[in-house]
Amino acid sequence: MANFGEGWDVFCSVLFVLLALHDVRSFSPQTKRNVLLFVGDDAGFETQVYNNTVCKTPHLDALAKRSVVFKHAFTSVSSCSPSRSAILTGLPQHQNGMYGLENSVHHFVSFDGVRSLPVILKQSGIRTGIIGKKHVGPESVYQFDYSKTELDGFPIMQVGRNITLMKQFAHEFLSSTDPRPFLLYIGFHDPHRCGHTQPQYGQFCEKFGNGDPGMGKIPDWVPTTYDPGEVIVPGFVQDTPAARGDLAAQYTTISRLDQGIGLILKELELAGYTDDTLVLYTSDNGIPFPNGRTNLYDSGMAEPLLVSSPAHTERWGHESNAMASTVDLTPTVLDWFGIPYPDYTLNREAVRLTGQSLLPVLQREPSTGWDTVYASHNLHEVTMYYPMRVVRNRRYKLIHNMNNLAPFNIDQDFYISNTFQDLLNRTRSGQPTHWFKTLKDYYYRPQWELFDHQADPLETTNLAGDRRYASVLSDLKEQVLRWQNATNDPWICAPWGVLENSGLYKEKPTCMPMDNGL
Amino acid sequence: MANFGEGWDVFCSVLFVLLALHDVRSFSPQTKRNVLLFVGDDAGFETQVYNNTVCKTPHLDALAKRSVVFKHAFTSVSSCSPSRSAILTGLPQHQNGMYGLENSVHHFVSFDGVRSLPVILKQSGIRTGIIGKKHVGPESVYQFDYSKTELDGFPIMQVGRNITLMKQFAHEFLSSTDPRPFLLYIGFHDPHRCGHTQPQYGQFCEKFGNGDPGMGKIPDWVPTTYDPGEVIVPGFVQDTPAARGDLAAQYTTISRLDQGIGLILKELELAGYTDDTLVLYTSDNGIPFPNGRTNLYDSGMAEPLLVSSPAHTERWGHESNAMASTVDLTPTVLDWFGIPYPDYTLNREAVRLTGQSLLPVLQREPSTGWDTVYASHNLHEVTMYYPMRVVRNRRYKLIHNMNNLAPFNIDQDFYISNTFQDLLNRTRSGQPTHWFKTLKDYYYRPQWELFDHQADPLETTNLAGDRRYASVLSDLKEQVLRWQNATNDPWICAPWGVLENSGLYKEKPTCMPMDNGL
Repeated sequence: MANFGEGWDVFCSVLFVLLALHDVRSFSPQTKRNVLLFVGDDAGFETQVYNNTVCKTPHLDALAKRSVVFKHAFTSVSSCSPSRSAILTGLPQHQNGMYGLENSVHHFVSFDGVRSLPVILKQSGIRTGIIGKKHVGPESVYQFDYSKTELDGFPIMQVGRNITLMKQFAHEFLSSTDPRPFLLYIGFHDPHRCGHTQPQYGQFCEKFGNGDPGMGKIPDWVPTTYDPGEVIVPGFVQDTPAARGDLAAQYTTISRLDQGIGLILKELELAGYTDDTLVLYTSDNGIPFPNGRTNLYDSGMAEPLLVSSPAHTERWGHESNAMASTVDLTPTVLDWFGIPYPDYTLNREAVRLTGQSLLPVLQREPSTGWDTVYASHNLHEVTMYYPMRVVRNRRYKLIHNMNNLAPFNIDQDFYISNTFQDLLNRTRSGQPTHWFKTLKDYYYRPQWELFDHQADPLETTNLAGDRRYASVLSDLKEQVLRWQNATNDPWICAPWGVLENSGLYKEKPTCMPMDNGL
Repeated sequence: MANFGEGWDVFCSVLFVLLALHDVRSFSPQTKRNVLLFVGDDAGFETQVYNNTVCKTPHLDALAKRSVVFKHAFTSVSSCSPSRSAILTGLPQHQNGMYGLENSVHHFVSFDGVRSLPVILKQSGIRTGIIGKKHVGPESVYQFDYSKTELDGFPIMQVGRNITLMKQFAHEFLSSTDPRPFLLYIGFHDPHRCGHTQPQYGQFCEKFGNGDPGMGKIPDWVPTTYDPGEVIVPGFVQDTPAARGDLAAQYTTISRLDQGIGLILKELELAGYTDDTLVLYTSDNGIPFPNGRTNLYDSGMAEPLLVSSPAHTERWGHESNAMASTVDLTPTVLDWFGIPYPDYTLNREAVRLTGQSLLPVLQREPSTGWDTVYASHNLHEVTMYYPMRVVRNRRYKLIHNMNNLAPFNIDQDFYISNTFQDLLNRTRSGQPTHWFKTLKDYYYRPQWELFDHQADPLETTNLAGDRRYASVLSDLKEQVLRWQNATNDPWICAPWGVLENSGLYKEKPTCMPMDNGL
């Protein structure tokens, strides 16, 4: 039994018991099966599929009619590179090493020994391709056979937003005479913001390639524009002209993403793969609005998820209430191909996937076993250290903010946005913000946040200090710690403890207290 | 002129003016010159050279008689991997990307585009070798021709503490018939603590290889043991039996390091290179005691530094008061070989060395220009986020603690030590600690710390809030910010600002205020 020191005894009995979710399988790889995985960039629920009646997404809508639509899917981490690493490894960011963004000075990479989906597939005789935004490293861990990404020297705007070019690359990949089954990963850069890096194209690059003077022309794109007055403002965004303007621009790029999906699904059909190919659509993290991306509130953590299987047509067009996570995608793909889940050692710790295949949900709505998801966050930009751990079940969510004494940081991209500047300026001048919280509360958070989603879907009332919820709090703390343990979380003792796990503590890792409250 | 936003105007006038310390040189590489660089691991001033009359270091003493002894040398960062990266690149950790430890889950690496000393030397026809502890990555950046390190599969205990084996590897390297000049880097693992990982060998691995039952035998080592009652307790360490016991153990391993230096200098002599070889000795960071390693107080930042040049015998045995930094080592070695300093672009920013060659100091004591050093720290273990920036001149030191609202963290290695446990237990039980500060003050630090070294060498009185020092504070703030700018510091706007440096701000990077004090 592990000894987590004084103050940790409540958790002792459950620690270092490895989760045993999966047995190693011994199937042979399926030979007539392929996977097409679409990942939107900061995409949310602004689609007809998720009951947004304004933003036009006919292609996602058509895909949904051949899919199970997950109504309660969540990202493992609300930050781009870490999320993509979780999608492609089945491991939370704190376990695969991708603690923050990959690009520029942020420079995070997964551990060299990580057995990622493309690596496993390659070893199993599956051809792998990636088109668009990649944003994970190192190359040796995330190696695809066919790669047209920003890390291959292509401008991210071209491979991620020029849907004609993306279609052409998809055509090239799908035209191959290589007889192996394949996985093709399409990383749209839409509907990511762009005011931060390419302001000439608008706040969301909604003008890029629209045919206006100086904007270039994406041949296959029929731009759809929206009236800021008609957009649907999510409850966690202030209803002001600035935010509405941003949302209208975002809708335009969501329409582009939607048309891109249509183009690529058409290529799949023309290549004759529609009836062999599992198609998935999701996003990396919440939308880039206040309380969204980089947060693990539901506004940053909930994700769209469509799973379309030609081998599981019985629930096409149905919705599922199963709580799914982006760490379920790797086991789903492996299950689809009949490939055993990886089981290995990393940094001297056993690694086993904690997600589960979504395929059974395509056959029937589960009655048990799909009621809890977890999430974790460490950094986004390298200067934004804000580790959080989350357990979310059908009713409650617990967030553990580990650097909560410092203010929650704002990223470069969001800071410069009209929406955030509007919040900042309204706050400064004492005007009504029309937001559901104050910037001060947004910056300074308690160490523990407990929300009752049944009564409070917007997560406005923290119940962590309410005695009536003491046992809920205690159970969820224990649960999140058990998950941290099962996923070899280096932050398992944070913030007030020091993890000792070598020498005398090699066999009984222990959280030792700093006694910071002296 | 850069605009660093509201509250930053005091610094505006000096920002984004690049330091122009060095002209690119056009010398041809010297062909009869070599370098031997010794790096101790957590080594401090417990040597006869630095007036410690107890710890026996005859070989360092002999080297000092052929050296200039720097009395005011400082590390660029008080953490192992970051410091080694600064030594081997001439760039502070925040500029080369090695923000924390390289090993295990910490997993920091320098940017792929960094032009390190071994890379530059290799391109200039210099043969490079490394024996012992390396602890930096990636391999492509820190590639040596000859490598016997923990990253090559050797046990760190063997290549870093077994001085007979280290001698044999040095012999192999020095016996090569390769006619190229060389740099040989010797990374001792002594006198690093070892109670954390290998407690069977004692707190500092002082028993490893001493011939006692089960301890093995290092043939060339004559162990020296010390009475805890006779050790000299530094002013920043509590004078208690526990700390004295640790210091006595540390002395034993310092003696082993000293004998290792003697063995390798003997190999150099036998190979006939003594009269061609620049020999340097320093350490990576302060000693692993309270207020030492991972701190940028002088107790963590001041370093031993010996520079022995056969071409500059005029000041052999002299002391220098020049303030030197470990980022001066790369320019010193390049200067010795007559190789131009690197000048390139990294993450779209110009990179130029900000250190300076120490060779002129070997000829005469400088009267100006060696009065200021800088240091920076981000993390040590990945869970220990505590960015600090420091400017230190002859009289004053300013420390900017950027995550000071959170407690300063204790690392796994030091936490478990007898010395720290003694402090913790004494604090808990209300006994006198015999320490010069409280644990509470150690954990919780103000954002700015200003010390007057003339009046207060132990840095006990923070003058940052003292109005009499307002202009000193203001000048030093400006100076440290200018240095952050010259070294492309991603933390230049931390903790309360967001750096915008692309899109509209590409040509005028700007710190934008979060207004966290709302």
